[in-house]
Amino acid sequence: MFPLTNQQLDEAIERLGIVDLQSATIRQMCALAAELEKVAGEKMVHLEIGNPGFAAESVGVNAEIAALQTGIANQYPNIAGIPQLKEAASRFIKAFVDTDIRPRNIVPTVGSMQGSFTLMILLGQRIPGKNKILLINPGFPAQRHQAKLLGLETASFDIYGYRGKALEAKLEEMLAPGDVTALIYSNPNNPAWTNLTEEELEIIGRMCTKHDVIALEDLAYFGMDFRKDISVPYQAPYVASVSKYTDNYILLLSGSKIFSYAGQRIAVVCMSDAVFERTYPVCKEFYELPNFGESYVFGVLYCASSGTSHSAQYALATMMDEAVKGSLPFVDHCRIYEQKGARAKKMFTDNGFHIVYDMDGDQPVADGFFFTIGYGDMPCGDFHRELMRYGVASIPLSSTGSDCSGIRACVSMIDGDECFERLERFLAKFNEEHSK
Amino acid sequence: MFPLTNQQLDEAIERLGIVDLQSATIRQMCALAAELEKVAGEKMVHLEIGNPGFAAESVGVNAEIAALQTGIANQYPNIAGIPQLKEAASRFIKAFVDTDIRPRNIVPTVGSMQGSFTLMILLGQRIPGKNKILLINPGFPAQRHQAKLLGLETASFDIYGYRGKALEAKLEEMLAPGDVTALIYSNPNNPAWTNLTEEELEIIGRMCTKHDVIALEDLAYFGMDFRKDISVPYQAPYVASVSKYTDNYILLLSGSKIFSYAGQRIAVVCMSDAVFERTYPVCKEFYELPNFGESYVFGVLYCASSGTSHSAQYALATMMDEAVKGSLPFVDHCRIYEQKGARAKKMFTDNGFHIVYDMDGDQPVADGFFFTIGYGDMPCGDFHRELMRYGVASIPLSSTGSDCSGIRACVSMIDGDECFERLERFLAKFNEEHSK
Repeated sequence: MFPLTNQQLDEAIERLGIVDLQSATIRQMCALAAELEKVAGEKMVHLEIGNPGFAAESVGVNAEIAALQTGIANQYPNIAGIPQLKEAASRFIKAFVDTDIRPRNIVPTVGSMQGSFTLMILLGQRIPGKNKILLINPGFPAQRHQAKLLGLETASFDIYGYRGKALEAKLEEMLAPGDVTALIYSNPNNPAWTNLTEEELEIIGRMCTKHDVIALEDLAYFGMDFRKDISVPYQAPYVASVSKYTDNYILLLSGSKIFSYAGQRIAVVCMSDAVFERTYPVCKEFYELPNFGESYVFGVLYCASSGTSHSAQYALATMMDEAVKGSLPFVDHCRIYEQKGARAKKMFTDNGFHIVYDMDGDQPVADGFFFTIGYGDMPCGDFHRELMRYGVASIPLSSTGSDCSGIRACVSMIDGDECFERLERFLAKFNEEHSK
Repeated sequence: MFPLTNQQLDEAIERLGIVDLQSATIRQMCALAAELEKVAGEKMVHLEIGNPGFAAESVGVNAEIAALQTGIANQYPNIAGIPQLKEAASRFIKAFVDTDIRPRNIVPTVGSMQGSFTLMILLGQRIPGKNKILLINPGFPAQRHQAKLLGLETASFDIYGYRGKALEAKLEEMLAPGDVTALIYSNPNNPAWTNLTEEELEIIGRMCTKHDVIALEDLAYFGMDFRKDISVPYQAPYVASVSKYTDNYILLLSGSKIFSYAGQRIAVVCMSDAVFERTYPVCKEFYELPNFGESYVFGVLYCASSGTSHSAQYALATMMDEAVKGSLPFVDHCRIYEQKGARAKKMFTDNGFHIVYDMDGDQPVADGFFFTIGYGDMPCGDFHRELMRYGVASIPLSSTGSDCSGIRACVSMIDGDECFERLERFLAKFNEEHSK
């Protein structure tokens, strides 16, 4: 039963060979949670990983099965993507973002993880001396790991202190030296679930144009700022995007969360015309290809995996098509996260915890996939570790580049009343023993 | 109609932005072939790409469909692989190679392309100063591109001049400086379709142990040395492998060719215990993970794509299981390449062409997926280009690191009598106009 003793926790960490719990990967955290469950003989509450929390969209599964039945498994998929997917994604972005991106510029990747990883390679090469990645934090820890693995320098700052007009001076300060090739952020934000305002996106876009920086906009949680209903295709309001304010953008759009399709590892990288067609010496000299877009597809992506699962491309194409037709209400399906988020947050705050990133400009953050939690002034690492000991798995905010103390909680794996009751019990016990 | 004029060919190359035809990627070559077909108004004979030439194994397709129907599309696959695949691959290697590899050490990748790409990252880091990749040529051009993209130095030599005992002195010369971290080769060989003898594998293994070099053995064409029937599980003869002669090995085993499953991008990386468990400072300091195997899985593969298609893992697991049970005669299915290879080679030699890599030790090379062709003393680039002009697409041997002049031909896309007749007609025309 939870809580475990400190010794039990230490031994489990040691058995898994985890050197530093605060900087462990999410996958290691999952392995540790599984180990702790064995020790405790009781299930933890899993707030650590963003596994989708509902069934994969059946139109996607059916399309994938149909594609397999037509016999596509033996043919290498076109490295630039099957035409159906390229065209469907172009329509999807037009319908829900009101941005025009040519099918040519849209390329499937093995999840957005492969998208950001492979893009960083080329972004780090495009202009000699301009090879730093700016992470607008807090953010997805994996992207920091990717840059590090590729030997790219990173810069970062916690945006919470620079919301609104203050963002401009901060970006100017970070970008003026001219060594930043790209900046990356997720919107809605992982982990804080904040959303950039139009004013902020305009500043980011303008600064990217001014300093020749390419914005990588990770739209993993596309449409999930539930305070604004973007679910009607070709009709305002649209998903907010930096693509309105600069030509220096690449959108990362994954099927993992919006269509609950994480298992099949399918996403698209969507480049503006300006980015695709940019020419750099490295393209001709290193890749022997004419421009950025072709170098990315035939130079980098080919080397990385020679393309993305053929059948999964059909699945994503079909789900996007159905969403555009209005027959797949994916935003409604994702509202389950809003309900779970509200319920879980209340349990935390009722038991003496507080929301760390609580405000989104002048309004409270929305309820959704993620939220952030602190306890008194308990430091980040101690709090994360202590919560695990009490049966709640999460990831520490320090791993997301945050300046704040606390943890990221993801609601997707909270499954049913029993699980919520267990969470309530663990939190009450934690509070009982720490509020003395 | 083919042949095209030189001007027509030049214009097509220009339209596709191909800088240097000899070093273009296979995918660019395919795009060029498609363009030339438009110009000629006639189909080329496609010998350039190794797309599988028969239907995907239906037991794989059915297993993948069944997995999708059980609802796995919404769950991230375990980054280390689903247990079914890890165990099936371990049995498969025991049954057909007679080598013991623990399921723990077997990890799925998005094709062997992702396998070699991601392994090179870690192999380049494992020991400071020891970061060169030795390519035993001729070889798969993509692997050279991968090393280059990752900023790793390569060394190489054409093995054709160093067959048998001569290999030992050559390897000693290449490895003695101590800067080579890994060597890579495919067996059967792409493009020459030669096969390393047990004597040569013993030398490679011994040299790898002596110089702490890790052998990456790419078994893409597993079992396709049709001179030797390895098709009976758990019974000699077995597939020849360096794993008999050193602990410093990693096998790359792809479903693309042996099961005609290229479209779904599924392979396994199989590490020896010794490789998996090796500890290096970079593991703890950079990855914060205990050893090579864990650093590869949770450090590198996680960053590269966060795992491999969930359903495709079920497909490969099932195909391997059926092969081990004897109910999927995959070697017999692949014999179609032997028949096509014999017929195509005869057409070339009947029309004045010659086999470049003609001998395999003291016997003629087998018939199979690839063969190599030259014409008189025509230089590599000229010959490759001229063949395209006459309607035959291929890749130049120069791109494979070969010292010889000629092209690589792949028989997989030759489809039926009409295609063979077209090949005969193109070759006869070529010979008629060049033998004058």
